[in-house]
Amino acid sequence: MDPYEDIKLEGHIIDSLLLPRVLDDILERDGEYRILRFRVGREKDDQSLALLRVSASDDAQLRTILRALQKHGVEIVENNDVRVEPAPADGVFPEDFYSTTNLDTFVRLKGHWVPVQWPEMDCGILVDAATGLARTVPLIQVRAGDLIAVGTHGIRAIPLEWDRTGGTFGFMGSAVSSEKPKHLVVARVARLMRDMRDDNKKIVAVLGPAVVHTGAAPAFTRLVSQGWIDVIFGGNAIATHDIESAFFGTSLGISLREGESVEGGHEHHLRAINRIRRCGGIREAVEQGVLTSGLFYEVVRQGIPYVLAGSIRDDGPLPDVITDAVEAQQAMREHARDAGLCLMLCSMLHSIATGNLLPASVATVCVDINPAVATKLSDRGSFQTIGIVTDVGLFLDELVGELENPPPAAPGSDGP
Amino acid sequence: MDPYEDIKLEGHIIDSLLLPRVLDDILERDGEYRILRFRVGREKDDQSLALLRVSASDDAQLRTILRALQKHGVEIVENNDVRVEPAPADGVFPEDFYSTTNLDTFVRLKGHWVPVQWPEMDCGILVDAATGLARTVPLIQVRAGDLIAVGTHGIRAIPLEWDRTGGTFGFMGSAVSSEKPKHLVVARVARLMRDMRDDNKKIVAVLGPAVVHTGAAPAFTRLVSQGWIDVIFGGNAIATHDIESAFFGTSLGISLREGESVEGGHEHHLRAINRIRRCGGIREAVEQGVLTSGLFYEVVRQGIPYVLAGSIRDDGPLPDVITDAVEAQQAMREHARDAGLCLMLCSMLHSIATGNLLPASVATVCVDINPAVATKLSDRGSFQTIGIVTDVGLFLDELVGELENPPPAAPGSDGP
Amino acid sequence: MDPYEDIKLEGHIIDSLLLPRVLDDILERDGEYRILRFRVGREKDDQSLALLRVSASDDAQLRTILRALQKHGVEIVENNDVRVEPAPADGVFPEDFYSTTNLDTFVRLKGHWVPVQWPEMDCGILVDAATGLARTVPLIQVRAGDLIAVGTHGIRAIPLEWDRTGGTFGFMGSAVSSEKPKHLVVARVARLMRDMRDDNKKIVAVLGPAVVHTGAAPAFTRLVSQGWIDVIFGGNAIATHDIESAFFGTSLGISLREGESVEGGHEHHLRAINRIRRCGGIREAVEQGVLTSGLFYEVVRQGIPYVLAGSIRDDGPLPDVITDAVEAQQAMREHARDAGLCLMLCSMLHSIATGNLLPASVATVCVDINPAVATKLSDRGSFQTIGIVTDVGLFLDELVGELENPPPAAPGSDGP
Amino acid sequence: MDPYEDIKLEGHIIDSLLLPRVLDDILERDGEYRILRFRVGREKDDQSLALLRVSASDDAQLRTILRALQKHGVEIVENNDVRVEPAPADGVFPEDFYSTTNLDTFVRLKGHWVPVQWPEMDCGILVDAATGLARTVPLIQVRAGDLIAVGTHGIRAIPLEWDRTGGTFGFMGSAVSSEKPKHLVVARVARLMRDMRDDNKKIVAVLGPAVVHTGAAPAFTRLVSQGWIDVIFGGNAIATHDIESAFFGTSLGISLREGESVEGGHEHHLRAINRIRRCGGIREAVEQGVLTSGLFYEVVRQGIPYVLAGSIRDDGPLPDVITDAVEAQQAMREHARDAGLCLMLCSMLHSIATGNLLPASVATVCVDINPAVATKLSDRGSFQTIGIVTDVGLFLDELVGELENPPPAAPGSDGP
Repeated sequence: MDPYEDIKLEGHIIDSLLLPRVLDDILERDGEYRILRFRVGREKDDQSLALLRVSASDDAQLRTILRALQKHGVEIVENNDVRVEPAPADGVFPEDFYSTTNLDTFVRLKGHWVPVQWPEMDCGILVDAATGLARTVPLIQVRAGDLIAVGTHGIRAIPLEWDRTGGTFGFMGSAVSSEKPKHLVVARVARLMRDMRDDNKKIVAVLGPAVVHTGAAPAFTRLVSQGWIDVIFGGNAIATHDIESAFFGTSLGISLREGESVEGGHEHHLRAINRIRRCGGIREAVEQGVLTSGLFYEVVRQGIPYVLAGSIRDDGPLPDVITDAVEAQQAMREHARDAGLCLMLCSMLHSIATGNLLPASVATVCVDINPAVATKLSDRGSFQTIGIVTDVGLFLDELVGELENPPPAAPGSDGP
Repeated sequence: MDPYEDIKLEGHIIDSLLLPRVLDDILERDGEYRILRFRVGREKDDQSLALLRVSASDDAQLRTILRALQKHGVEIVENNDVRVEPAPADGVFPEDFYSTTNLDTFVRLKGHWVPVQWPEMDCGILVDAATGLARTVPLIQVRAGDLIAVGTHGIRAIPLEWDRTGGTFGFMGSAVSSEKPKHLVVARVARLMRDMRDDNKKIVAVLGPAVVHTGAAPAFTRLVSQGWIDVIFGGNAIATHDIESAFFGTSLGISLREGESVEGGHEHHLRAINRIRRCGGIREAVEQGVLTSGLFYEVVRQGIPYVLAGSIRDDGPLPDVITDAVEAQQAMREHARDAGLCLMLCSMLHSIATGNLLPASVATVCVDINPAVATKLSDRGSFQTIGIVTDVGLFLDELVGELENPPPAAPGSDGP
Repeated sequence: MDPYEDIKLEGHIIDSLLLPRVLDDILERDGEYRILRFRVGREKDDQSLALLRVSASDDAQLRTILRALQKHGVEIVENNDVRVEPAPADGVFPEDFYSTTNLDTFVRLKGHWVPVQWPEMDCGILVDAATGLARTVPLIQVRAGDLIAVGTHGIRAIPLEWDRTGGTFGFMGSAVSSEKPKHLVVARVARLMRDMRDDNKKIVAVLGPAVVHTGAAPAFTRLVSQGWIDVIFGGNAIATHDIESAFFGTSLGISLREGESVEGGHEHHLRAINRIRRCGGIREAVEQGVLTSGLFYEVVRQGIPYVLAGSIRDDGPLPDVITDAVEAQQAMREHARDAGLCLMLCSMLHSIATGNLLPASVATVCVDINPAVATKLSDRGSFQTIGIVTDVGLFLDELVGELENPPPAAPGSDGP
Repeated sequence: MDPYEDIKLEGHIIDSLLLPRVLDDILERDGEYRILRFRVGREKDDQSLALLRVSASDDAQLRTILRALQKHGVEIVENNDVRVEPAPADGVFPEDFYSTTNLDTFVRLKGHWVPVQWPEMDCGILVDAATGLARTVPLIQVRAGDLIAVGTHGIRAIPLEWDRTGGTFGFMGSAVSSEKPKHLVVARVARLMRDMRDDNKKIVAVLGPAVVHTGAAPAFTRLVSQGWIDVIFGGNAIATHDIESAFFGTSLGISLREGESVEGGHEHHLRAINRIRRCGGIREAVEQGVLTSGLFYEVVRQGIPYVLAGSIRDDGPLPDVITDAVEAQQAMREHARDAGLCLMLCSMLHSIATGNLLPASVATVCVDINPAVATKLSDRGSFQTIGIVTDVGLFLDELVGELENPPPAAPGSDGP
């Protein structure tokens, strides 16, 4: 983002030729402008108003332009530094703290706009007076005396430029619908994944247990083997049912080869957990030769990091599960900070939790057969979420096919 | 079904050795029995009760057995002919009419059990005294004076033998779930379709417009070209959107190649209807070279019959649409009577209507991304309905693949 | 709507003082303007553009203003009469017909803007050259030679002024959500109904059979008795189950007093239909003393018109049902034309059909426990639909209570 | 449950008069029997088989009967003590551990059937050899060396007697449907609550945040004030949004009085959490006069215990939230053990978690507008769950009304 300031012109700015002169001055100095608001006086004697965003390629040039404009009496809309107050206690923000969005955000410190590191919604902004740096801080991590941004002056959240993902998914709008041609959707998710690989950005996958129940695990395992997935988030259930299927051929007691209930099958998940607990963990079970197939076997083999976050509905749980919610959030947060794309597959709880942590600039694809899940995600502020209402098993099959055999690029058609 | 009668034994049937003697007599005469109910006396002096279904390979042999049992004093449970009354007016049944199920049903005429032709739920049974035949008759088709079965005596509905479809779909139970391994489901639908072809039974497909919206029409068209589909039921919308896509490349105004809204696209469906109306109908549009691609083009080319039933939400409609609900039902009914399998794809209204007309013995596969549709179907009495909650587009792709490349039959595995 | 024209100014309209002069001229002649678009030249030598909507209280005054502006060289954006072509055959529009929206629409005939009678979506516009009048015409009703509007020139659809219903329901936005405080929603529907009564506008109710199943029929009957409902749309099922409940105390065989399945109950609906058929219709059954309670009994007693539209899933049907979809649409259309408010309760098919017929200016409240129904309605273009996701039985109870005991108007609070 | 053993008779038990003699012997000794299975030989020479459950009012009498039967050569089906093995490590069961259901369960120790304390699904059974007692133990709580039941012999789970809740909710069957008469449902939940109060059994309420969003909190608060609720389970969100509404009048930023979005409202929940964190907790905020209204204010005032279990999607969280899933489960488990009725209102995660902990004998009422929630609950093994698909706000209003003004008991009608 080029540095900018917003300026305001008020009065008889058309008759008095003020507006054309200001525009001239900006263009002459190689600045740029965008008219944010323009209100022409309703009656002859009414005043008009123009709000302009003036930008330049660097801070110095912007200052030059602004100095030139001052002679016309234009007003700089935001001209104050951010205000900070010390946190009154550990885990408590000052009363009037600024509550963050997931957008790229800047705070004005000593007249300069400084980026806030790690955009994340529902946090505070911690300002380090010594270094002149700012970063988000979750409520629970703030320490007494930390300087926290308060009020709204000197803080700027930059609206998402939709083209970023819009170029790929513009056709889906914000609507979540099952009635879209699925071949197109699959092709574009594949393209998005290839874009990430080209740009060296990480792909985070959030998995729910239905990935196993629906028989989608082998297709996803293939994505893992081929190096498409950089980190996996999930809970006790996805790992348990994957391991259950490796040990017993069932998922929640249903045979994945026959589709039928298996005698004693409802106990398999607890037996699977017990066996892994005995080994000391999933990785250990692989090393000891106890776990020899399945999705998490492959994940361990490929050395892909995973975060399994606990929940109160868990049986067991597996030793790998982080049972404390705050710790688990932090483990996920660290991976979320350098994600480029997030694939959310059949998991409401973990997807919402991940959505809470992701910067708005991360493209997010939520695949679920239940339209309510994607709706719920976008209701929570993850506006960049693309909801794909479909069968995850069949979807991953086609996605793997598409990634393995990309269609020849038609010249000019639908291309990058 | 072999002929049978149900008999009742009451009293001290164990102490008195009555039961063992009756069983002896049946087996000696090459009959068979099934114990329907057996209640042993609670206290020493209580009487016991046994209800047995006695069957034989033909009516004559059954009479012989029953005569033999009469000497033991057994009671034949159902020993009356069906009672009939004349319909009091056109379109009106006698007050106490027997309301049919969709099960195979028999009425007792002059001591013999006669099958009721064309099982269909919510009809009456018309008895032709002259010919000794019986058939279902919808309320609206009955004529004053027709003899209609009343009461419940002398009428038998045979519970569905679940093995018929159970052999193929037993694993799904009655539950409608999206969380089933989809490869299995696809493979078994394919096997069911091959079974139908082997048995020379018809496959009816009921289509909703989402087949077009989701991009599933090309896959379904392939099924049509390869001769899998014998008759198509649908409404104005499925044909309209298919033709819209042939003329304009859109479905409800959404481009099927780009996935995006097209300028003026919301008018395309009405323009498509208008163009077909000008031709006089779909078939005529194909003959005149106006309609040259798409699902209904292929349907016409293959000479496959279709019934498009009107509804009050229709635009246009297309000239092929039967706007009168009673006429449309009758057109569908005639095809439904010799169906072996019914594929219901993304259509609630037409699927329920078809379900109302089908005998219970017709296997029914309902594919919809909305679990409520299949649930609603089975709530309405179409108990043999298998609900598959998935994405119809991706499902049909895999089904076509499965039918074109059947997996080699593994010896002994999962076989017939 | 006051008459208006859109004018365009192009060039150096700010430097040359053209814009301020035009605005002066409009205001001096008691006209009004709204700036539709305003593009200031990017570079010094670029031209600017302004698009203004000029309106006046009557056509004569507007002409005066436009003549005054012509001396500045402004361009009137739309200056052509509508083009018409004769329909080539019965039931066929000319190829390039204008496809209507449900918005208030005007066509320009001999330089004057004439309102199109009966706004309805997906129709054509029939122009009567003799009388100079225009009206919508459904495709199926057009006759060969009728003059039909073609192209897009000389036709104006007026965007809905959202305040109309927005004043009452603005708080719900377009979102369909179950998570809204329900007391507020009930209170505002009640106010909307009182507004209709005050304005002498009709309230149309569209009912699905769930109104009976959920025990909501008594509450709705109360609305009928108290004169809130002007016309009822529904299908065979709502009337059948209401009458079933009057005759047998069940709905689809479930006892409404005990909530349990009743022996033989699944036959009740067909017996109810049969008994009404014997009487000749619902009204006749009331007159003959056969039907003596329930919703439709009250509807007949109050002399409220109803349209029962047939569908292919109907049993029977009742003699009152219009089985032809085109006839049924027309019967509904005539009532829809003077509706002010439409309450859609638990009926997807009939609600969509009604939505298709209603002008956009009719406030529409769709109550269903299934969010997909309201979503589907608004997807189809009935943008003014307010979806209320709730339990219709409990909702109607509270609505009746609210209408019978309106809260005292708090001064200034949440007022008219 | 009276003590019982199952016995098997095989051979020519009818011809040989074995069966009648056994029955005589049982009845003569004041025992009772139920015939579990009875297979009569298919052919004359085939053997028959009878499986009988013999019960007596106490263990001594049962031994007497069994000794008498031994002379007939009957076989006692289950005649072995439960087998136990020591847990191999902390948090690990022996490989062949018995996985519990939520049913009342007994283990056979030294020939006697001993009840397993605290029925809970997916646990092990810990046998204390010293005291001869047995209890469930969650996997994570087992210690190395604990004696754990293995295999299946000597263990009995008693199927739920449906009449317990069936007497009240039999009419709803297992089906989850929105189409039930709601007045009946409300009346029966009220009766169930009164039954609990009469029987001195606890009522547990599980609450989701939609209770606040839908405006249902005041009605629920009334239940709390009137002493109907004994313990509350929930998460960070329900308490946060209740407190947000007390502080700011909004829930998730939506005004509960106006129904509209409030400027800055999306920050209210985090500000509410921050303010409570500053006080040190909810109880402290009430004591300090900071929190002065709302549901949790009343909960604190009434001294009702509550468990707020954390999850990874939480903001904050509130200091009262138990962030560790295992600790939170244990806190909930202790309350669950003496529950008689559980009301689950609009919370999927917490309801499933609670369902996992509850004995099958606890009546469970799950109210949600989304049918999938109740379906998911019963899929997980909480078979005694009654799903009520309705609007929780309107439902609680009627429930409060019903509890405050119970209808006069009609003599003989629908009574206990």
